[in-house]
Formats: sequence, structure tokens, C-alpha cells
Amino acid sequence: MHACVIATGSELLRGRVRDENGALIAAGLFRLDMELGEMRFVGDRVADIRSALDETAARYEVLFITGGLGPTEDDLTCGILCDLAGVGTEIHGPSLDRMNDFFSKRGMEPRPGDMKMVTVPIGSRVFPNEVGMACGFAMPFRSSRVIALPGPPRELKRMWEAHVLPWLREGLGVKEKMFLTFRTLLLREAEADERVKSLELGKSGLEWGICTAPGINEITVTSTGGANFDESALRSSMRRLFGESLLDGESLEEEVVALLAGRGLTLSLAESCTGGMIGARITDVPGSSRVFRGGAVAYSNEAKESVLGVSRKTLEIYGAVSVETAREMAEGARKVFGADIGISTTGIAGPGGGSPDKPVGTVCFGIADGAGSRGERQYLPGDRGRVRAFSAVFALDMLRRYLKRI
Amino acid sequence: MHACVIATGSELLRGRVRDENGALIAAGLFRLDMELGEMRFVGDRVADIRSALDETAARYEVLFITGGLGPTEDDLTCGILCDLAGVGTEIHGPSLDRMNDFFSKRGMEPRPGDMKMVTVPIGSRVFPNEVGMACGFAMPFRSSRVIALPGPPRELKRMWEAHVLPWLREGLGVKEKMFLTFRTLLLREAEADERVKSLELGKSGLEWGICTAPGINEITVTSTGGANFDESALRSSMRRLFGESLLDGESLEEEVVALLAGRGLTLSLAESCTGGMIGARITDVPGSSRVFRGGAVAYSNEAKESVLGVSRKTLEIYGAVSVETAREMAEGARKVFGADIGISTTGIAGPGGGSPDKPVGTVCFGIADGAGSRGERQYLPGDRGRVRAFSAVFALDMLRRYLKRI
Repeated sequence: MHACVIATGSELLRGRVRDENGALIAAGLFRLDMELGEMRFVGDRVADIRSALDETAARYEVLFITGGLGPTEDDLTCGILCDLAGVGTEIHGPSLDRMNDFFSKRGMEPRPGDMKMVTVPIGSRVFPNEVGMACGFAMPFRSSRVIALPGPPRELKRMWEAHVLPWLREGLGVKEKMFLTFRTLLLREAEADERVKSLELGKSGLEWGICTAPGINEITVTSTGGANFDESALRSSMRRLFGESLLDGESLEEEVVALLAGRGLTLSLAESCTGGMIGARITDVPGSSRVFRGGAVAYSNEAKESVLGVSRKTLEIYGAVSVETAREMAEGARKVFGADIGISTTGIAGPGGGSPDKPVGTVCFGIADGAGSRGERQYLPGDRGRVRAFSAVFALDMLRRYLKRI
Repeated sequence: MHACVIATGSELLRGRVRDENGALIAAGLFRLDMELGEMRFVGDRVADIRSALDETAARYEVLFITGGLGPTEDDLTCGILCDLAGVGTEIHGPSLDRMNDFFSKRGMEPRPGDMKMVTVPIGSRVFPNEVGMACGFAMPFRSSRVIALPGPPRELKRMWEAHVLPWLREGLGVKEKMFLTFRTLLLREAEADERVKSLELGKSGLEWGICTAPGINEITVTSTGGANFDESALRSSMRRLFGESLLDGESLEEEVVALLAGRGLTLSLAESCTGGMIGARITDVPGSSRVFRGGAVAYSNEAKESVLGVSRKTLEIYGAVSVETAREMAEGARKVFGADIGISTTGIAGPGGGSPDKPVGTVCFGIADGAGSRGERQYLPGDRGRVRAFSAVFALDMLRRYLKRI
């Protein structure tokens, strides 16, 4: 089956918002036996959305259209589709109840525009929105079929996984490609790409793709036929290629929380340059409170001293960004929060603060347990955002490797 | 002038690579008097690239096409364009010299494919590539004009800034556009939209759009004519519409850091349900170390007690999620880190932990200064991610409003 994505929203054409929905759908379809032929971003203009639908409906069997289901005037998707398809609209009862409930709980009144979010084409297959208000829906369109999804990536992601994917399988009978996903840490995409290429997966009829986030490459290997899809062989060759940098869990923080829970150990943090990013990621995992005692964001030297007990001497001799300070921070975090393990980061995220001997991107990490502590110094170049993101990944990975060894 | 972007590359359609070039061009055009009507991502297939060019050339005056200028087999752009336009190709001398120089310096021979990178349509305006090898170029195409740019974002970015932008201004006479961006906090998009609508900006020839992130609406007003673009009038009507919920700075965290710096005050944090998200946002601002002393992620009751000095009695009587605990957390953070102001969050982010009297989404906030402390309880419903994101925005906004008052 051939598919196309039409992402609506003028903000995408103003470069203020990066596309997430298109990438998510593309990655999702890559795992199905459905080929994504093109992706279009169009503004919130009737004429542009109409011609995008006209042109693509003639060429693809399934059209995914994202955005334009919200409450505002420039949310046009449902109206245009009904207009072109010549069908009327109806209110989706369950979604209306949910919306009214949401508002009354907060002592608020729905605004006139809000009704749009629970209005769908008559007879369409409705996809409930569990994290927002705008319904998604699927409807026949010309010789094709349209699937309309909300614009906010959080809402689309949830709707995609909970409702759209199952419907594509059962409703449309789209076959799953067989696929395996591998996640590697702290490798450049080009490097991961080269290594996977060396496997020459194409020769055995396998396709693969890499999707990169800061510090993590997600490698997905798929097979439509499935004939040559030897899961254990794949796993071992990936293991051979990437060794310990291969993640077992779905995400780095989930794996760390699971490893801690499995070993009955508790964690505390001392963050400087990451400023709370590691804590934010750990506590993003439901139930992390079982293993996470807490953390200190010790941004100033005073805080490193007074809160974490880093000795002034260490700060004076080695400086705030040093392996020695990182070790004392980790030890301090462990003591202060009464945890089994303490992890620390201290570095120069930039843009200022660099020096010839400690350039921007110099980050030190510490880990402490009952037996003692160790630290390491890394150079993680890039802009402030990249240095911080990679530092958080590096610290979590250091902990992960430690936990796997004990 | 109406423009369109065609980004070529099959990897974009596998969710394997996130688009950067489209976003960069979009952001660049938004500041010019050139309207980006649509963006298309197509694979490296002759048929797909041809029909994209056919359809868009009929509709737009300028087509930007990115990618497909490299040395490999699936680099097709120049060939397809010359074929469709019926023009021959020529070697761009300066670029060839540069390439030969590059290779000879490394004792390498150019491979046959490499010549493609310095081959351009006869008579085209060539944009030299200063960080790579593939030339960009502009050529008339049907009643339109095509600007072909290399796929690697680093190369495109440099070429765009150094050569394409100046050429758009001087060569095509494209004017800069006027625009103003306003940001409002913790308003539902529908509500913000209704208020802006009441200004009837369209009547004075202004365009506007809203782009929403958790807790923040970004309203951008643009004018091509500029005749009716009365900046101060716009500012005051937005001020009238949104009052204190209107942000002055580029981002909430930047404004908070600027307000603290302006008043010579320092900040400390006590985060529970936000787990470090507030610290991460504050420290995302370069130079935040001047005003940010540090924070404690006090996830467990023990940490609230031992690190922040919240009294056991308070925790027992009112519970961890209470205005009383929030206040003591804020006071504790202030003392522990020796800051002028302490901010705290404690809440139930879910999915578990809710109760009839404190459902998931119940979050308490505290703020403490030398004069004392106060707290408030909010209900911020949604899934774990939304509760946490809104809690961080709410806490930062509470601080922002406090700072604007003193």
C-alpha cells in the first residue's frame, strides 16, 4: 500500500516549529508493509490543503493528514474534508462527554470553538484522544482513504500507538513488517550507519533505517518477506558491532531505573552543567520514586561546598570542572540523600567559560558507591544544548554500565 | 513572491533523518517578503522528483530544491532539472579547481562521480560551497525559478547565509518583512485565539498565527506592506488583551533569569514532581549561573526532611503534596543554597498515586523570600508528561509574576 503524509500548520512553514508528526508517522510506516511516497507540509489555507488532498488522493491509497483539528479558526481539516467528500458532520458523544467532564472538573466553560474538536465526519471511524481533546478519524476519500490526526505531537503519538496502528492492522489489513529496533549510545550517526552497512543486510532482503536523537541512534531493521529475518542472528551481529553501547531497554532512563530496581539499589544525583536534566529524565519514568532518592543541582561553587560537601581545597586546586570535584560531588550526593549510588556532572556547557585547557564541551563525571568513587573527564563538543544533552546521556550510560557489571 | 521547498532524500521518508534544511529555509523566508506555500519531502526517485517539480512550478515563483547534488547514483537533481528545462550542463571552473586542490592536497584522485558535484546547468547562477564540494545554483525553470541547494545541513546553512540570502535580496529584490512575536502563558490556545481575533488584525492587512507548546502560546503578527504595522499600538493592544500573562522575553526562563539579574537577586529550587525540569530550563539560559544558586530534587519524603528541613509533622499532617509542605520546601531551598528566593513544586504526576481528594494533576507550589513564604494548590490535569511540563511552567510563571511586582 502506498501512503502520503500531509502535515498542515503554517507554523511549520515559518521554521518556528520542527516537524515531529511527519517523522513519527514515517518511522511508524517504515515498520509496516506500507510505503510512504511523500510528505507535504502546507499552511492553514483552504486552497493549499484542498490541492494537496486533490493531488495526493489521485496518487496514494492512504493519506495521513495531521493538524487542523483544534478549536481555532485556522483549524480547517474536518471542514475541508467533509466539503470535498460531500458528507456532513456529527458530534462524537464519548469525546464530548470527556471534554465537558474535563472543563467542569476545572470549573471552566467550553468555548464555542471547542466543539470543533469533537466534531467528526458522519460515519467516520473515530480515534479517541486520550491526552487531548481533538478527535482523530478515518474516512473514505475518493478512491483513497484519509486518516486525520491531531497536530500536537504528544496527542498524535498516543493516538497513533493506541488506536491508529491497531486499526491499520485490523481495519485495513496492513501487514506488520518484521522488525527489530536497536538503540546505540553516544555514537555519531555516520559511524553507526557505517557499521550497520558493513552487515550488508540488503543482500538478505532486509531494509534498515537509523533515527537519531542527541546521544542515541535508533536502528530499525525490517523485512517484508520475513524469510531471512533471523532474530537471534541479528541480535548477535548488532551485539558484535556495538558491544556495550547497545541498549537493552526502550529508553536509557527506563533501563537505568529497571537495573536499579532489579538490584534493589537507590540513586542520588549531583548535577552542575546538566542543571537537573538527569533528574528530569529519571523522574520521567513512572515509579522511579522507588529507586530515586533525589538530587542536588549544585550550580555554584558555594552549593558544591555547602550542600554536597566538596572541599574548598579541591575546588581551588583542581577547579569546579575536574574529575576530583566530580568525585566529591558524587560522594556528597550519596551521603546527603542517603542513597546507595551517587552520580555527578560538572562541565563547561558554553557559550562562555571555556579556556585553552578546559574548552567548552569539557565535562567531568563522577560515580560513588559504598566502596568508593571514580570519575572521568570527557570532551563533548557542540553548542550549549548539545553539550548538556550529551552530558546527561553520558552520565546515565556510565551508571548503566556500572549497574550491569555489579 | 510565493515559494516552495522540495527536499529530496529517501531517508526523510523512513523517519530515519529529521528534516533540518526545510526548517532552515522556512525560518529564513519568514523574515523576508517571500511566502513559503508548501514544503515537500520526496524520495530519490526520478518520477517523484519530476512530478513534484511539475506541480509546484505551475504554482510558485520560486522553488527551492535541496539534496541530490552529491556524487552518488541517487543524486539526481541537476540531471532531472536540465532534462525538464532542456538545457545542457557545464563544469563550474572555480569549484572544479577547488575540488582538485582538495584532493591533491590529500594525495587523492577525484572519483568519476565527484565531477557531478561541480557540474551545473549552462548559464545558471552558481552558489559556491565553502564547506563541501557540491555547487548550488539558481536557474529559470518554466515560468518559475529553481534554486538547488546541497543536502548536508551544514553545507546548506553556510551557502544560504553567505550566498543565497544576499542573492535573494539583491538579485531577486526580495524585501525584509516586518513581524512581531508575542508569548502568552498558561492560556488555552482557543482562549488566546479568541482574544487575538477580537483585534481584527486582518482589517489592517496584518496576518497572525498561533503556535502552541505546553503552557505557552506564541502569537506572531506579520505585515508585508508594513503600512499598518504600528509596533507600539500592537504591543499595547496585546498588553491589553493578555495583561500579565504576556511574556516580555524570548522564553519564560530567559525572562526569569533577566528579571533576577536586573534586581540583583539569586534563586534556588526545591523540585519534587518536576524532578529537575525547572533547573534544567533555568540552566538552559547562558549565564544563568549569575542568578541561579542551585536546587534540590527532593523526590522522597526523607529528602524533603533531611535536605530541605521540611518538618516531619507537616509531612504527616498535611502530606507531601500540600501547600504547607511546598512552603517549607521553598524556605528550605532558600536557606540550604543561600539564595534570596526559593521556589518549590510538589505534586502527583501520575499515572499512580492519585486519590479522590488529591487526584493525579494536583500540584502545590511554594515561594519563599526574606519576608516569608506562600504557597498555592493547582489542578493541572493530563498525563504524566503534561502535568510535569505545566507544573514547570506554572512555577516559573509564579516566580516571574513575583519578580515583576517587587
